[in-house]
Amino acid sequence: VASAQPESLSRLIERLMKLPSVGQKTATRLAYYLLRASREEALDLAQAIVDVRERIHACPECGNLTDLETCGLCTDEARDRKLLCVVEEAANILPVERSREFRGLYHVLGGVLSPLRGVSADDLRIPQLLERVRREGVQEVVIATSSNVEGEATAHYLQRLLKPQGVRVTRIAAGLPVGSDLEYADELTLGRALAGRRDM
Amino acid sequence: VASAQPESLSRLIERLMKLPSVGQKTATRLAYYLLRASREEALDLAQAIVDVRERIHACPECGNLTDLETCGLCTDEARDRKLLCVVEEAANILPVERSREFRGLYHVLGGVLSPLRGVSADDLRIPQLLERVRREGVQEVVIATSSNVEGEATAHYLQRLLKPQGVRVTRIAAGLPVGSDLEYADELTLGRALAGRRDM
Repeated sequence: VASAQPESLSRLIERLMKLPSVGQKTATRLAYYLLRASREEALDLAQAIVDVRERIHACPECGNLTDLETCGLCTDEARDRKLLCVVEEAANILPVERSREFRGLYHVLGGVLSPLRGVSADDLRIPQLLERVRREGVQEVVIATSSNVEGEATAHYLQRLLKPQGVRVTRIAAGLPVGSDLEYADELTLGRALAGRRDM
Repeated sequence: VASAQPESLSRLIERLMKLPSVGQKTATRLAYYLLRASREEALDLAQAIVDVRERIHACPECGNLTDLETCGLCTDEARDRKLLCVVEEAANILPVERSREFRGLYHVLGGVLSPLRGVSADDLRIPQLLERVRREGVQEVVIATSSNVEGEATAHYLQRLLKPQGVRVTRIAAGLPVGSDLEYADELTLGRALAGRRDM
């Protein structure tokens, strides 16, 4: 049976099976597709994977993913620099942007506080947040962590740190279904959540 | 919104969306997975795609996919060289091999006759099949094309060509659900289909 399938094809199927929710059948179908597709299409995909790993890094200012030195949001002169939106992951920025309800800058924590998984404040970009608020004279921090237990606990932790600095701390609210992750929220829900934010 | 996502990430999502049954949500999830996975895992996948395109070609003898000069089946001394199994595509060889009911060699047609799609005998590896049967003194040709209309028509066409050469022509039969494609058959069904083959 081994000799019936070229080794490089078996290896591609194996690699594809490491992707989330890709089993043997899907991996085999994808591998044959890549074998039959135009040479250009297949090599473009391979190059896109390489590029993403070679070019993308965290923005030194906000932690957003970028292939520029500083990300396009931080260098956008039209954004309100006195307004910060705190998110767990860089992937959370795009849905907030799509809601078109926020014109400030972002700060990516790189996770949430989680005693169970051993994530403490030192593991997140919290010192950088405090320093940034102080340095830039930020007037409002909108906390857009998930509305689950860890996201709420992180929001309250940040509020206790930020309040003494005299900054307004708000929390996205109405519309976000309680217990769900920010990652799965739709644009309308997120828009309403941002519009209805309230003081903490 | 554009500046919220690195260009190389958008491009990877775009490329992934070209894969069969991969929509925007799945492509985004896969792209972020590749961004978070170990560098080695991501680059290995990219290299596996490149390798498949650089190394794999059709075996000059049987048309099977291979990254060797002649495929591993054609050079396997233990196979019965007087027995040929005719399949539509190279991808059909693996399920037949898995049935463990066949110990001969293969011949890949590269499709089926289809007047509707403009595929005639000249577009398939049929002259090579006739020449091979003559040259190698093949005693039996098992036709394992799909059991749909085009597969059956192709089988009958081949039978009419091969019979005058004095070769036994058989057709895989019992077990393969009528109207279905060979690609989706399970190993047991294929095994029974091979064991129950009958003269045409």
